[in-house]
Amino acid sequence: MSQRELSELTGCDKSTVSVIIKRFEGIGLVERTMGASSGRRGRPSESLRISELSGLLMGVHLEFECLRFVAANVDGRPFASIDRPLPTTPSELGDDVRNGLEALCNEVGRSLSEIRAVGMTLPGLVGSAGGLAESSNLSWDTVAVPDLLRTKIGAPVYVDNDSNASTLAEHLFGVAADLSDFIMLDGSRGIGGGVFIDGRLYRGRSGFSGEMGHIKVVKDGRMCGCGAPGCLSAYICAPALVARSRRVPGISKFSDILAAAEAGNPDVRYLLEEAGQFLGVAMATLINVFDPPAIALGGIIAQIWPYIENSTRQTIQQNAMRTPAREYEIRISTISNSQIPWGGVTLALEGFSNLHPTDPLPW
Amino acid sequence: MSQRELSELTGCDKSTVSVIIKRFEGIGLVERTMGASSGRRGRPSESLRISELSGLLMGVHLEFECLRFVAANVDGRPFASIDRPLPTTPSELGDDVRNGLEALCNEVGRSLSEIRAVGMTLPGLVGSAGGLAESSNLSWDTVAVPDLLRTKIGAPVYVDNDSNASTLAEHLFGVAADLSDFIMLDGSRGIGGGVFIDGRLYRGRSGFSGEMGHIKVVKDGRMCGCGAPGCLSAYICAPALVARSRRVPGISKFSDILAAAEAGNPDVRYLLEEAGQFLGVAMATLINVFDPPAIALGGIIAQIWPYIENSTRQTIQQNAMRTPAREYEIRISTISNSQIPWGGVTLALEGFSNLHPTDPLPW
Repeated sequence: MSQRELSELTGCDKSTVSVIIKRFEGIGLVERTMGASSGRRGRPSESLRISELSGLLMGVHLEFECLRFVAANVDGRPFASIDRPLPTTPSELGDDVRNGLEALCNEVGRSLSEIRAVGMTLPGLVGSAGGLAESSNLSWDTVAVPDLLRTKIGAPVYVDNDSNASTLAEHLFGVAADLSDFIMLDGSRGIGGGVFIDGRLYRGRSGFSGEMGHIKVVKDGRMCGCGAPGCLSAYICAPALVARSRRVPGISKFSDILAAAEAGNPDVRYLLEEAGQFLGVAMATLINVFDPPAIALGGIIAQIWPYIENSTRQTIQQNAMRTPAREYEIRISTISNSQIPWGGVTLALEGFSNLHPTDPLPW
Repeated sequence: MSQRELSELTGCDKSTVSVIIKRFEGIGLVERTMGASSGRRGRPSESLRISELSGLLMGVHLEFECLRFVAANVDGRPFASIDRPLPTTPSELGDDVRNGLEALCNEVGRSLSEIRAVGMTLPGLVGSAGGLAESSNLSWDTVAVPDLLRTKIGAPVYVDNDSNASTLAEHLFGVAADLSDFIMLDGSRGIGGGVFIDGRLYRGRSGFSGEMGHIKVVKDGRMCGCGAPGCLSAYICAPALVARSRRVPGISKFSDILAAAEAGNPDVRYLLEEAGQFLGVAMATLINVFDPPAIALGGIIAQIWPYIENSTRQTIQQNAMRTPAREYEIRISTISNSQIPWGGVTLALEGFSNLHPTDPLPW
């Protein structure tokens, strides 16, 4: 992009852009290249780009099986990843994260000092200060994650719920890149989500918003892992689908369900159609409450979408108010199922690019 | 408030405030008074106030029984009201609204030309352009209300859903005045509500957000007036409560239910407790989705609150995630049950005070 284009895009005058760009060049964040000739006569236009060597954004994903580390340049696009074992107790988290970051830096031939920000995702409720407050899927509870990391890692650390991070990733890099408002439902061991409004993630009073898996779909219904009855997650998260198909021979994990559905197994197809109805009820509630331009579906919901689409859409039409139900759009995420997760580096990018104007630059 | 205080509050420098205030004085919006002596020596401080004669904001409420007209000064506080019959067809709306505004102006000794803005509320889904898109409670459908009014009324007209208007009123004048985020549930013939986020009403893609009465509480449950099953409104709106208590002798309207509950009638008390459970399920969904600082309850929900509070709170504790459920606050509206409705003049005030900087002043 040229300086003139930056000026038009930001609404800042040319001299302001020039001053800021000089500063960014000075710290190695931005570099100048000669753009492709426009075909017209005259000198080839000079353009600016984010320098690939300007630093690293790192994602750390606390998943159920492992700690997953992801590296991105400051444009936020992940390019490498490694998995390490989960710490057995929270007290080991600081050392384990530092060691993992170091191992990933070694692997990509960079150094820890190049890390500009770390974004860490947790599978549970994460408070505004970054602490884990509640996780029905993880045996940890009330862990002050930032305190555990602060002394071990030089760069700023941004911690959030995994689905909040996925929601941000869909806005910056995924199916919601053109939307300033959308609702995300993201599925794995549990069902999560995010509320994206007016161009930013809405985090609620204390950071706990977006728990779409705990929308009530059946009054006094199945018990959910969260301890309450009738949540969407109790009907459609991966363990629930596996549990509900236990009478089908050969099903012991989620990938078996996908394979059986693909092979046309009628019991599994029926089970998934029914799951689509529960999802449709929850989405009808979201449509009536938000009138959202779009709902993005990610993770396992995206994976089973071919088998639940009909029943989900039909249930929405039967349950949502007819005017907003004419307008909503469903978008199926691809990055939420990519081999390298995007959420962590997206959190790091959000933090890195939202430095308060009076903050000192972090390097 | 003094010019100095205005400057501190707005962050504008004194000379900017001075220029704007001079302009406002010139058009009669603001007047100077000598403030009460501060007790310290020196000249008594001069302060500014909104002139009571600077104009009128008018509310027009299309209700089920009547067209209700409300007058306020430009501070938005209603001071007079009249009721007129409902137009029999939408085509009469323009003349009927104009005549009603004229009658109210006569009653308060002011003139139509003093009206700065009109806010009109409708009991149904209202699109961003002010048209009625859908109303399960009114036999009208798809009525382009602003077009019907435009040629009849000189002042700008702002049209919105009645519960959206109530939500704004709670923020400006009611129980949510100190909150930049809250959720409203407002009940009458139907149950409505509003999503108030980051200091403004969130209206969704096309203006249809906040339909809290159509949160799903029972999968495949009772049919709601909206045509879909299992909505909160089907269990707790005034006609639903009356219908569900039809076996109780002497109940034929909502006020009978209130009287019977007050008198301790066990059947009615039980019915209301059960209604509280349905409300609790819907509020648990809202808490899990928004992590809201507060939920405001208005209209008939506020009226029956003494009889549903226990079952509602208990159901929330059983159904919401335990961390956000520790934090939410319930606030019971009073202005939503005041004799003169606040919503219409609040819409007028929102429109009047949000004039885009490049708009010409409307007088």
